[in-house]
Amino acid sequence: MRPIALLACLLLAWLAPLHAATLARVEPANWWVGMRHSEVELMLHGRDIAALQARTTHPGVRVLGTAALDSPNYLFVTVAIDEDAAPGELAIELLDGDAVVARHPWRIDAREPAPPRGFKTRDAIYLITPDRFANGDPSNDTVAGMREGANRADPDGRHGGDLAGIRAHLDYIASLGFTRIWPTPVLENDQASTSYHGYAITDLYRVDPRMGSNEDFRALAREAREHGIGIIMDVVLNHIGSEHWWMRDLPSRDWINHGGRFVPTNHRRTTIQDPYAAPGDRAGFTDGWFVEAMPDLNQRNPHLARYLVQNTLWWIEYAGLAGIREDTFGYADADFLSRWAKAVMDEYPDFDMVGEEWSPNPAIVAHWQRGKANASGHVPHMTSMMDFPTHIALRDALLRPDTWESGWMPLYEALANDFLYPDPGALVVFAENHDTTRLLAHVDGDLGLWKLGLAWVATIRGVPQFYYGSEVLLRGPAERHDGQLRADMPGGWAGDAANAFTGEGLDARQREAREFVRRLFNWRKGATAVHAGSLVHYAPEDGVYVYFREHEGRKVMVALNRNPADAPLALGRFAGSIGDARTGTDVLTGRRMPLGEVLRLPARAPLILELD
Amino acid sequence: MRPIALLACLLLAWLAPLHAATLARVEPANWWVGMRHSEVELMLHGRDIAALQARTTHPGVRVLGTAALDSPNYLFVTVAIDEDAAPGELAIELLDGDAVVARHPWRIDAREPAPPRGFKTRDAIYLITPDRFANGDPSNDTVAGMREGANRADPDGRHGGDLAGIRAHLDYIASLGFTRIWPTPVLENDQASTSYHGYAITDLYRVDPRMGSNEDFRALAREAREHGIGIIMDVVLNHIGSEHWWMRDLPSRDWINHGGRFVPTNHRRTTIQDPYAAPGDRAGFTDGWFVEAMPDLNQRNPHLARYLVQNTLWWIEYAGLAGIREDTFGYADADFLSRWAKAVMDEYPDFDMVGEEWSPNPAIVAHWQRGKANASGHVPHMTSMMDFPTHIALRDALLRPDTWESGWMPLYEALANDFLYPDPGALVVFAENHDTTRLLAHVDGDLGLWKLGLAWVATIRGVPQFYYGSEVLLRGPAERHDGQLRADMPGGWAGDAANAFTGEGLDARQREAREFVRRLFNWRKGATAVHAGSLVHYAPEDGVYVYFREHEGRKVMVALNRNPADAPLALGRFAGSIGDARTGTDVLTGRRMPLGEVLRLPARAPLILELD
Repeated sequence: MRPIALLACLLLAWLAPLHAATLARVEPANWWVGMRHSEVELMLHGRDIAALQARTTHPGVRVLGTAALDSPNYLFVTVAIDEDAAPGELAIELLDGDAVVARHPWRIDAREPAPPRGFKTRDAIYLITPDRFANGDPSNDTVAGMREGANRADPDGRHGGDLAGIRAHLDYIASLGFTRIWPTPVLENDQASTSYHGYAITDLYRVDPRMGSNEDFRALAREAREHGIGIIMDVVLNHIGSEHWWMRDLPSRDWINHGGRFVPTNHRRTTIQDPYAAPGDRAGFTDGWFVEAMPDLNQRNPHLARYLVQNTLWWIEYAGLAGIREDTFGYADADFLSRWAKAVMDEYPDFDMVGEEWSPNPAIVAHWQRGKANASGHVPHMTSMMDFPTHIALRDALLRPDTWESGWMPLYEALANDFLYPDPGALVVFAENHDTTRLLAHVDGDLGLWKLGLAWVATIRGVPQFYYGSEVLLRGPAERHDGQLRADMPGGWAGDAANAFTGEGLDARQREAREFVRRLFNWRKGATAVHAGSLVHYAPEDGVYVYFREHEGRKVMVALNRNPADAPLALGRFAGSIGDARTGTDVLTGRRMPLGEVLRLPARAPLILELD
Repeated sequence: MRPIALLACLLLAWLAPLHAATLARVEPANWWVGMRHSEVELMLHGRDIAALQARTTHPGVRVLGTAALDSPNYLFVTVAIDEDAAPGELAIELLDGDAVVARHPWRIDAREPAPPRGFKTRDAIYLITPDRFANGDPSNDTVAGMREGANRADPDGRHGGDLAGIRAHLDYIASLGFTRIWPTPVLENDQASTSYHGYAITDLYRVDPRMGSNEDFRALAREAREHGIGIIMDVVLNHIGSEHWWMRDLPSRDWINHGGRFVPTNHRRTTIQDPYAAPGDRAGFTDGWFVEAMPDLNQRNPHLARYLVQNTLWWIEYAGLAGIREDTFGYADADFLSRWAKAVMDEYPDFDMVGEEWSPNPAIVAHWQRGKANASGHVPHMTSMMDFPTHIALRDALLRPDTWESGWMPLYEALANDFLYPDPGALVVFAENHDTTRLLAHVDGDLGLWKLGLAWVATIRGVPQFYYGSEVLLRGPAERHDGQLRADMPGGWAGDAANAFTGEGLDARQREAREFVRRLFNWRKGATAVHAGSLVHYAPEDGVYVYFREHEGRKVMVALNRNPADAPLALGRFAGSIGDARTGTDVLTGRRMPLGEVLRLPARAPLILELD
């Protein structure tokens, strides 16, 4: 240190207040004027600030109170933002007595015009694992100071996919007929390894620099909207990554379940609904950790609960989100989940949120959907849930031979359980996702069964969800291996031999599959009978499952033939649904077909007819 | 014919009115004064009576109206019985204009004092196939004029068991600890073959003469009550036997579904709850016939509906029934089932009725239980249903090896679904019945697994049901074969080598089993913690399933160890349930055991402890 610098330091030390404090963080960094949620609890982090007082410097922004927990380094400051407060910069000041010992910039913003919200039955969701979709910006593959760099050779490593990669291919995604994108989490995961998947978040207010910036995320959402696509953000309420900065200085002893010590969850999800579950088992489910690298959040702590609610509202408002997918639903505290979802829906009444409850049991899943009257007293506010029960039944149906109770039957019977849901039409239906084996692997490469599965997803009630890359027959392993399943999209990296986006290098089967997906989902965009239509399905017979959708005179007939040969379908049984129609148009080929006594069904293929 | 007789005939013909009619039947043959159901629709059957008028001869019994259907040989006469009508004989007179063309004796009776009704959690049910239990009266084994005689050598033939046989062994049944008997149907089954099972009823107001008389049935119920046992009658609303007298002269063209022609049911039971079921599939389920020998009743015909309701009320009142088990529930018309059950419960508010809905799906079963708010609008009035979902899960649990999701787990998870039922404690739980393979065959003769299954049934919530003969290890075939499954009870027939009732000729294993059942269910009679207690169960671990029942300070701990070896059970996990108890008494052996840190569980056996 040069003498002049030393002098300056001493001078500053003399000028500064006695207890000068530095705020490392104030979260959230801003809020908006005119939100229903107008009392915001800020989390301030800085050395020895817990006993200080707080005030703001802006008319219409008032401090309502402060709270401190176990750590001396956190102060929770609740500010109220008046409806007529003028947007702009301000400061949060901390005081020791009358002395201001810290000032931190803060901001209130004007809200942007509300974008279209929600995901509805007219929508179709394209699920992406961003690290594996497209590397739009190779310069951020490895970021100095972050624990894991890119290594495309490692199936569990980071491959360099990013927000720029998605943004570059919005045209492509829209051309396939999709209207929503659900990227798995893009927030910072500064973990030592396997950080690519995004579910071990280390900063809840920051997009991972290897994906891009917060502003890139907002720009992606904006540009997606211009393509008619809304972004569904993947929110993780249950846990954080073990390298989250909280873990080095916990706000309170109860911030993390089991006092911050790793105790695995027992995964006994039925304990939440089970009227007889031992309290210890129930706690073992919600309080146990997923894995050691994912400390389990205790949402019963009201400050943490508020932090999480605000974090969700912040991202919706900041990025103009269309919807939210909530991870590992049920593992979080049930009361908190209710309050969290209510806060979001109160703020954004036309919003949609889908939860992941990986259960084959529709009664367990239905428990969480808005409008369900639960014996337990739990009041749910989720508009949607992932439809795992039909997902499991669909995959079962495609594999098991046709008998009295197998073949299509489990799928038919799973759908019968819709009486358990307050709004089955709002469920998200899917044949595969980032945690299952891919559908093509599941059916051992059988393109006919694969098409049958996708046709069901696209034509049944609910909002369909598709997984990136399946349109070019990414197959993945037959047994679950996440890193391999979430393979790189061909063409997403410079020098790739094949290119899903342009079609270059795709083989005939891949082109056939991509064209199938494109036709199916583009047709679906305008198929009001599928969006809003009634559903009548017929008990499957002889390997054929037939159902009808109808809305305001538009009728769609779906016949799913899983037999390896052509099959004659006698139409007499369906007279009540076919009505006066004498012809139908195959939406995949455009071919018109007569609806006589018998319809010839193609071997192991879906037939989707718009009735004339 | 002698001349004097001929003369008498001519004289009578001259004296009789012009259109003299003979009534072959008036059903019911009597009613009671003071029933809530005081307007009774009588079914009159006789040649060409449909156009006649009706009146009665008794003060306080008035004809409200008549109705005729398609057949000229039926007249439905509604009579109102005033509350103050004097019990006694009367006549139903039919008139052609002013002329009385027929008189039929009828009767109104005073009601007997109401016996105890219902079956409650304190009860345990002994299910009997009466033809196979005990031959109390060999003189009625074959009855002249009836289509099938006794043939004990034929597993599907009649073996001669009867009401007298049950009556003779009430002491025995009570000694085992049972408080209810459910005999499979005892009404007339005058079918050509396989008539022993009773489900093809040919006269709904008559006990089969090979079983005894109506009066014998009433006497059995009376004598059973003196043993603390109530009778649960097996009622069949869905169908009749093909030799039912109706089938020779149907009251209306719509009396039998499919116009009296055999069309099999599709057995697609989910169509009733399924919001999307094709109407034709739903009708295919309820209107189709079980088998050709069982014409399917159309309960949408209001006269048939009334007939069935009254028939049920009649038997309850006549025999002093405790409860009803309704066969093939769901196959009958759903609206009718609601009205039928409501009529019974309105008449007998403390009554209980259990329906057979053979589905693994608790949502399907719960749909029928009183208090369930159904999205479909169906208002159920059944107090109980057979708990097929846990039955299926229990049998699964006993067979499949212990893994993350098998072993006890399906049973534990099935019980978690109790949140679907308005009153899960009222369900009837069972490990076997007359339609399943016997539990012993299911577990391939493993007495340890067999005891585990029975202990679960006896200690879990609900009303347990046991199948006759299993206490002496009747095993039956490993694959379903009804005639063999429903084997003769040893000692029920003179000359039997062994005798379950006296114990003579039983081998050591049989004696052990019988003693186990006796201790288990006799203990259960006084176990208020099982009748009324809370239930807390713990997620099974290492092949051991533990749960607790507790009521007003009485605590029962049940530990089910399916491992083939002794197992140490660390008790720390159960501290919340064990509380202050330091010892427990094994209810099967009377042995006291300390509740230290570890409890030693016997190999593959239930341990039921009353905590001190």
